Amino acid sequence: MAKPIILSIDAMGGDAGPDMVIPGAALAVERRPDLRFLIYGDTSVIAPLIKAHPRLEAACELIHTDVVVRMDDKPSQALRAGRWKSSMWKAIEAVKTGQAMACVSAGNTGALMAMSRFCLRGLGDVQRPAIAAIWPTTRGESIVLDVGATVGADARQLVDFAVMGAAMASAVFDLERPKVGLLNVGVEEIKGVEQVKDAAKMLRAANLPGLDYAGFVEGDDIGRGTVDVVVTEGFAGNIALKTAEGTAKQIAQYLRQAMTRSLLAKLGYILARSAFDRLREKMDPRKVNGGVFLGLNGIVIKSHGGTDAEGFASAVELGYDMVVNDLMAKIAQGISNYHRAGGSLDLAVAEAGED
Amino acid sequence: MAKPIILSIDAMGGDAGPDMVIPGAALAVERRPDLRFLIYGDTSVIAPLIKAHPRLEAACELIHTDVVVRMDDKPSQALRAGRWKSSMWKAIEAVKTGQAMACVSAGNTGALMAMSRFCLRGLGDVQRPAIAAIWPTTRGESIVLDVGATVGADARQLVDFAVMGAAMASAVFDLERPKVGLLNVGVEEIKGVEQVKDAAKMLRAANLPGLDYAGFVEGDDIGRGTVDVVVTEGFAGNIALKTAEGTAKQIAQYLRQAMTRSLLAKLGYILARSAFDRLREKMDPRKVNGGVFLGLNGIVIKSHGGTDAEGFASAVELGYDMVVNDLMAKIAQGISNYHRAGGSLDLAVAEAGED
Repeated sequence: MAKPIILSIDAMGGDAGPDMVIPGAALAVERRPDLRFLIYGDTSVIAPLIKAHPRLEAACELIHTDVVVRMDDKPSQALRAGRWKSSMWKAIEAVKTGQAMACVSAGNTGALMAMSRFCLRGLGDVQRPAIAAIWPTTRGESIVLDVGATVGADARQLVDFAVMGAAMASAVFDLERPKVGLLNVGVEEIKGVEQVKDAAKMLRAANLPGLDYAGFVEGDDIGRGTVDVVVTEGFAGNIALKTAEGTAKQIAQYLRQAMTRSLLAKLGYILARSAFDRLREKMDPRKVNGGVFLGLNGIVIKSHGGTDAEGFASAVELGYDMVVNDLMAKIAQGISNYHRAGGSLDLAVAEAGED
Repeated sequence: MAKPIILSIDAMGGDAGPDMVIPGAALAVERRPDLRFLIYGDTSVIAPLIKAHPRLEAACELIHTDVVVRMDDKPSQALRAGRWKSSMWKAIEAVKTGQAMACVSAGNTGALMAMSRFCLRGLGDVQRPAIAAIWPTTRGESIVLDVGATVGADARQLVDFAVMGAAMASAVFDLERPKVGLLNVGVEEIKGVEQVKDAAKMLRAANLPGLDYAGFVEGDDIGRGTVDVVVTEGFAGNIALKTAEGTAKQIAQYLRQAMTRSLLAKLGYILARSAFDRLREKMDPRKVNGGVFLGLNGIVIKSHGGTDAEGFASAVELGYDMVVNDLMAKIAQGISNYHRAGGSLDLAVAEAGED
């Protein structure tokens, strides 16, 4: 039998906590029988829930923790109250010590990122971590990063994001040389996007083996799937992600209203039921649940806090895929390629190369 | 008879140029009979087109210009080649001289903004102009600004945007005290959004009569219509706008695919046809075509370059509404209220007021 894939789970995270996390983990292990879990949380709550899932029970080890990071804790509060001892911390720490191959939590993003940075530290030359999201497109799926780890990024950091995003795309989508675009605004010559332009020069000059730099893309290119990886800083990335989610919900509501307005529409809806089901499935945010923290010494997957068991299972399976496809090694390789090829490549060099 | 509303039209702008602009203007004057136009462009092309629309012909004056600003001209090129003499410049200048009450162009955004700034200059204390878009929401419509006039904005500039956006909301939506939100990311305590936090303090401290400051909003609040006016800097605003457009197109494509996949789905589609038509109408980007340049000594409406006659007519009608509802006076009033009430309000004062 193949080596099992061991993930650490923060059972106390998410709006519904263990009531959502445990059934989610159970779903994942049914679909990926080689999964094993280290589950951290309040055993008095969790143990009875696990009893209902014999397969999960056989595949997990339960570790008691007293402290819970709340969904509205600020990162600094969470660190103060939860470091060394909360379920969130312990789950991250299991990745650091090598007991787990990746960590999954539906806890609050700010706290999870702060603890992950503190515990796992930055990977090699990477200055800043990023959160990468998988984004459904008309062509399939793309990766967008950073969707909210930090605000602002200089050219060097954007290049790091590009390299890490490409590594993730090669791991998840099995691409040799993923197409990478830098998110920009269409208007030429407006001020303030110097860092994006500089990153473009650096990527073009570096001409990396694992990354096909495809130029600037705009907001509407994301859903079109123009590139495999869309790179931006965390403020714009987070706003793009949330805006797309909001627009999808808005259109779903328009559609519901339209389809219940007349008898004919209702009848049409019933006949086209399976088509609507397929549409709903395509638009199901649970299917692409899970932001991946990149740029740390270990993989941490952030599940949506408000998701259900099915959504949490998706996040767990995303973690599983990352491990199986050797994401960490691919990122390390990409970063090292960049720093070898581009070497001490700085912008002056890149600009000289442009001429 | 009421005083006519006179708009200046750049007939040479847009991907299709006069072939789209002239029928668009004709549509608008049919729906708003008190419209009058000053139409700038190549008369040898335009005059024959106008002949086909007697009502438009009776309502317009045609002014010949030789120079055309191309859709891919950079702003600096456009200024160099087109200042004083292009159809775009002349249409803007008509607002400056008071011959027209507002200007409408489907020409390229960067050039139109550069010329508008150069010709009309900034309004009073407003440091930077913004482009405001009307955004359809599940509750109706909201205004989002800046969607791409400039990149980056400090706290003071964000407050200007808030005041101008509120004035526009009161003009367009007929609201006494529009709710205004600052676009932000959900994660607490992350760095780099100081200007957004500072703007929040300043808006709260100023407590303006024409603006109900409602706090931070996130990307998904835009489509939800949580506030009447969403304020952000131009990079994030442009990306939000384009991302929403891309998502809407993406879902429309999913829907088309789903509805043509099986016989039953096709039959259902036919029965629910009117519901789909209503949905299409709701999602029709032409209905909300037109970005309004705020913060200049005059109103300039930017129509989407790729729109059709119907879309251009919407942009013209938006300009009409702005004039009829006295947008310029409302903005001037809002800005003056702010500088009187908040007076020389700076952040130190705002912060003292917070304690």
